[in-house]
Formats: sequence, C-alpha cells, structure tokens
Amino acid sequence: MKGNLIIKNAYVATPVGISAVKGEKMGFLREIPNATIVVRNGRIVFCGPSSDAPVVNEADYEILDANNRVALPGFVDSHTHLIFGGYRPDEFEWRLKGDSYMSIMERGGGIQSTVNATRIADADDLRKKALWFIDRMSSMGVTTVEAKSGYGLDLESEMKMLDVIKSLEDDADLKLRVVGTFLGAHAVPKEYKGKTDEYIDLMIREMLPAAKGKARFCDIFTEKNVFEIEESRRFMQAAKDAGFKLKFHADEIVTLGGAELAAELGAVSADHLLHVSDEGVKAMAEKGVVATLLPLTAFALREPYAPARKFIDSGAAVALATDLNPGSCFSGSIPLTIALACIYMKMSIEETITALTLNGAAALDLAGETGSLEEGKCGDIVLLEFDNYRMLPYYVGMNCVSTVISKGRIVSQN
Amino acid sequence: MKGNLIIKNAYVATPVGISAVKGEKMGFLREIPNATIVVRNGRIVFCGPSSDAPVVNEADYEILDANNRVALPGFVDSHTHLIFGGYRPDEFEWRLKGDSYMSIMERGGGIQSTVNATRIADADDLRKKALWFIDRMSSMGVTTVEAKSGYGLDLESEMKMLDVIKSLEDDADLKLRVVGTFLGAHAVPKEYKGKTDEYIDLMIREMLPAAKGKARFCDIFTEKNVFEIEESRRFMQAAKDAGFKLKFHADEIVTLGGAELAAELGAVSADHLLHVSDEGVKAMAEKGVVATLLPLTAFALREPYAPARKFIDSGAAVALATDLNPGSCFSGSIPLTIALACIYMKMSIEETITALTLNGAAALDLAGETGSLEEGKCGDIVLLEFDNYRMLPYYVGMNCVSTVISKGRIVSQN
Repeated sequence: MKGNLIIKNAYVATPVGISAVKGEKMGFLREIPNATIVVRNGRIVFCGPSSDAPVVNEADYEILDANNRVALPGFVDSHTHLIFGGYRPDEFEWRLKGDSYMSIMERGGGIQSTVNATRIADADDLRKKALWFIDRMSSMGVTTVEAKSGYGLDLESEMKMLDVIKSLEDDADLKLRVVGTFLGAHAVPKEYKGKTDEYIDLMIREMLPAAKGKARFCDIFTEKNVFEIEESRRFMQAAKDAGFKLKFHADEIVTLGGAELAAELGAVSADHLLHVSDEGVKAMAEKGVVATLLPLTAFALREPYAPARKFIDSGAAVALATDLNPGSCFSGSIPLTIALACIYMKMSIEETITALTLNGAAALDLAGETGSLEEGKCGDIVLLEFDNYRMLPYYVGMNCVSTVISKGRIVSQN
Repeated sequence: MKGNLIIKNAYVATPVGISAVKGEKMGFLREIPNATIVVRNGRIVFCGPSSDAPVVNEADYEILDANNRVALPGFVDSHTHLIFGGYRPDEFEWRLKGDSYMSIMERGGGIQSTVNATRIADADDLRKKALWFIDRMSSMGVTTVEAKSGYGLDLESEMKMLDVIKSLEDDADLKLRVVGTFLGAHAVPKEYKGKTDEYIDLMIREMLPAAKGKARFCDIFTEKNVFEIEESRRFMQAAKDAGFKLKFHADEIVTLGGAELAAELGAVSADHLLHVSDEGVKAMAEKGVVATLLPLTAFALREPYAPARKFIDSGAAVALATDLNPGSCFSGSIPLTIALACIYMKMSIEETITALTLNGAAALDLAGETGSLEEGKCGDIVLLEFDNYRMLPYYVGMNCVSTVISKGRIVSQN
C-alpha cells in the first residue's frame, strides 16, 4: 500500500498547470470543496469532487479523512544551503550591531568560516545535520527542497557536499524530494584571492565535469566584488555547455545586471533580486526566468524586500523560498515566509501559495512532477489544521500544517 | 515523584532577582556551565555548578541529562487574549489592502464580530480552543500565560470568559500557569454606543464585583475614541479601589497619555506603547511600571515598533509578550517575538531573554514565583536544542525549544 492513499472530505486549493504560472494567473487557485484525492503508487490519479471519485478497492489504500480541512500541494523550498559545517551566531550579533555582510566577509568572517568548517566536516555528520533540518522542513509542509553545494570551494569538498546531497536525493525513504545544485561559484576561495579567473578555470576544468550527474543545476553568486558580470557569463556559459540547468544569485546587494544575464543565458531561475533593475524584471518576464524571492533573508538583514509586485505585474513567475543558510539567513520558516509575502510584499495569499508550490516547482524545472494537485503529478500534499487557506497569513508566523504527504506517504503529523 | 526533577549537565542562563530588572541590569544573565538544577515538589532547591550540587536520593527524582544544552527560565507571555469565539481571517485581508483598525471597527467589523461570536459561544468550546493554543504555546517554551476577558462586554459573557480562564488557572494538570485579567473595558459595546459613561457605571457597579476572585488584574483599552484619559482614570481608580492590580493598553494608536496614567495609578504594567511620549517613558521608569511591548502586533499591522531602547535606557523594565488575539495579531509566536526584538527593536539577546522571562513575570506581579532559575522559585524551565542561547535570534523565527518543564514536570518535548 506504500504510496496508495485516499484523502476524503478535503477542501482542495491548488494552482493549476505544468509550467510557471505567469502574470494574473498567479493569483488563481482552483478550489474544490468536498474533494477526494486518490494517490496510486505515489501519483495522483484523481483530484476532484467526491461525487465524481472513481470506485476503487479501499482495502488497497490508506484512507485519510480531512474533515473539510484544506489540502494544498506540498511546499517547494527551491533555494536552500542545506549542507554546511558549523554555525555562525556570533556574526549574526555583529551584523545586528551594524557591520555589513561584505565587510564581515572582507575581514575573513562570513562565508569563509563556514567553508573552513565544511571542509573539515565528515560527510556523515553533514548528512545527519541535513536530516535534522529536513524533519523540521517536513513538519512545515515542505515536500521538495533544493540543496546547494558552495561551502567547499575546492574539488574534494564540493564533491563531498554534492555526494551528501545526492545520497539524500536517492533516499526513497526520505520525507521529501531533494534536488541538488552545484554552487562552486558561491565565493572566490581564499586560496584564489585576486585570481578569480584562475578559480573559474579550475571550476570549468575540474569541478563541472565532476559535478555532472551529481547535481542538475549550476548556480553562481553574481555580485560586485564576488563574480562580476563578465566572469559570471563565462562560467555559466560553460556550465550550460556542460549540460547544467542554470540558477543565479542575482542583484542581491547592488544592481549589477544578474537578472539580465540570467535571461540572456536562459536560466531556469534568478534568485534574491532585491536590487533588480526594471530592465532585469522585463528581461526575466520575457524569457520565462522564474523570480525566486527570499524574504526571510531580507527580513534577517533588515533589507528592503524584493519587488514582488513588479515581477508579478510584469508577467514574471514569482517563487518564494527560504534561503536557509548559516550566514545571512539561518531560517527555514515557511510560516514566516508566508507572513512576509502577504504583509510586506503585497502578495495575495493565492499568489503566495502559488509561489510556494507550482512556481517553486517551476524554479526547479519540476512543475510536471509536483507543485499542484492534478492528475499525473506526485502525491505531494499538505493538509492544514483549518478549513480556510486564508488562515495561513492570518495565523502570523505560526505553522498551520497538520499532515504532510510525500508521494502518497504520510510523512509528518503535527 | 511529580514535580521532583534533576537536570544534569545544563548550561544555565538566567536573569536574577525577584522584581523587575531595570536599566542596564536588563542585559545581564547569570551563566553557569556544567550546571545542575534540582526541583523538589515543583520548586527549585538548587541551581548551580554540578560540583556544588547537593547529594540527594536520585530514586525520588526524574533525571534529565541536558547534554550541555541551554537551560532558560520558562517564558512568560504576559499579554494575550487567549479566549475568543470565531476567527477573523477576512478582516486580516482587508487590513492588508489598507483599511485601518479604527475604520474596520467603526463599520461594525473588528472587535464587535469577535464579541458576537464569543457571546454565543459555549464555555466548553472556548475552553477547548484555549487548550489547543496552550499546547502550541507550551511547545514554544511558555510556562506562564496571561489571559484577558474583553470579548463579552456584558456581565454574563465577561463572567463566562473569566470562569473559563479561572478553570484553566485552577487546573493543576495544565501545561502552564494561567493568570486572569478582567478587560471589560476592551471596547464600548454596541449597546452603549455614545454612552461610554453609562457602560463604565455598569462595569463599576456590576462587573468589577463579579470579577473579583476570578481575575487578579483589571485592564483597559485607553485610546482615542475608545476610553479617553478621563474615562480611563475614573474606571481604573474604581478597579484599584476594588482591589485589582492594574494593566493598561496604552498609547497604541495615538499618543494619548496612557503611559502617564498608568504611572499615576501605580499600574503593574502598561502595554503596546508604540506612540508613548517621552514623558510617559520617564513616568513609567520612575514609578516602576513594566513596559510590555508586543512586537508581533506591530509586525502584523505594519506599524513602527515600540521604542524598546528608550525604555531600557531610561531605566524602565521591558517585558515582551505576544498579544495573541483574533484581530490585530493572531499569533503566539515566541520565536518571531525574539527575532523582532533582536533584529528590529535593537534589544540584545540577553535583554530579550530577560524581557520574556523575569520581566514578563514582573508584569504579572509573579517575579517571586517564576521568571528566573533561582532557589525558591518554581521549576519552570526551558531546555533549548542548542548549547548557546545566541542561537535564539540567529535561528530566525524557528523554535529552538526542545524540552519544557512546568513546576518540575516535563510537559512538552519537541
């Protein structure tokens, strides 16, 4: 019966479609009161009014009575740095006292301290730590999570991280689906200070071939004094040529043109985008690059939020993700992400749900597999504690999730 | 063995004292590595270095190994509207679209809709709903919660609410301590529109005597167009004369002088205070009125945060509470309260812990009973998942609590 499940008496609310939802469609949810969802072998074979439900042999299925509670697609957290050594609470205090991210980085703190801790960490310990977070993510309704490398910054350590990620991706018993991203271009490691081009050469020559098969995506921190536009273009073109799908950390700290470059290279998503230019918004909308916004990071850094409305109103698909990482944003809070989107980014709750489900899936090129409750997709489903999805932003910062289902298996119950 | 507990190998971090901690002392925590805490019959009989721990017969105690995790005093949520009928998610959406609290109230929405739902609610249902919240509060480390009436606004319904609160207060098996507050002066009920003085007469004549013995505190919403200063003074003087300790909803929406009035009447606390005057801050500091700040409400309403630093730097004792209520702030999130205090109110984590423990207790006149880990106080203790309390703000908006102990009983484990 593994992966065979019938949910009865659900109030289904779901975006629809198999590609990124654009423009005004982002605010549309299909709502089905008194719904039945039938999942067989992990796939949804029926999602509709109970009166239309197929007759099946219930003995073959686990049966769940939703008691009119809301059923949403499982959440997709499409941008995280799930694997890392150590913690950096002291730096968090420094930053609260006014030190900037770049200044902390320049004096050898910041990412380099996580790199040091990750390089010496045992793969098993990294995996255990990730599993600890995965439990918490699952309890908040996450059924798909992206995980990046990028704290190794040398061949061996980057591959150690990707191997951990791949082992999670391949673990059929895990509570959620893991998607791996190679982020060797997260920073220039101290060994290559002032020699960015040499590090890019190393990545192209050694890391990209080694990462192939371990990660589907390649990502880069395109930022002033990290990887500039020309450097980013050279590396990401090579990654594309090597068969990786592309993601960008773009326009987070200054307006550099990362969004435009993501559009030029046909990236699947560009992320952060706090300081995106109007041209960048337009280019992303035209080229169908998903705009992945990370409000927890802006909240933690006291930065302005990314211009969600500008993207949505321009017809771009907006996704929301947590950016869980040990530096700028040590948080995986889906409830707080929802609160920030609705209260501070002027997104409606319908847009927010779409951004956390279908558009998150689109940001991982997985919108054919998950992100909506439709026949053919995986049975990745969240039941709320309430019969009204408007409780999600209203119950501010609190977890409304009661039951989480991954590919038809009940994996978390609060 | 009920209420007999030994915690070994804890990293204790606690404010100290039995009254409100003022001024620079707010930032001081006593830290004891390798600590042992011995709780007997619900009271702490030892809290100090393990090397100094008394020899006891361990067979009489439950034993908990903290494995070097942090032990804090249980959190005190000293301002909540825990008892209410219905929910108001639709109004939350209206407000996000720009409608003001007062305008929603003026057109018959707002508090009146909760009053209507609470008046028709069955006491058992109100109690069950409160227990649902109490479970969640406890899992976030709350061991003491204040609960206000104020959604009845007639004699019968106010007493129904207070009876529910009293039944929780008297329930020895409950996961936390409940403290009741009579808030008949939460709003002028529609039956008395334009006749505020008559409603105050009714409260003084009938409600205060009936509330005596059911609630320790009396509170009022002192605000323009609700209860003005003169009206507040008359009612609260009567409450004081009747033997109630006083609390004020003060200077939340406009600068009205509620803080000054609270100081004048010797209130235990004044709460909200987003628009407090400098004179109000000074008066509260001088008179030892605890300033209870409610950042979740400001966050949910997109209001500026209350001037925590001004209070602390003036020598006032600052407490933090959630303001859980069905209107302006439907949230009981302790993790988000901590995040807002540290990231947005310039409070240090030490001040924030003090505000959520000892000063919360002081805001309920209970600092002799709870709020710090000291001999003689109740065994109300929180164990974190980490060995460093600086993880609390750093793990943004996430629950760091692993084990919750109320009067020496383990009541929640995450």
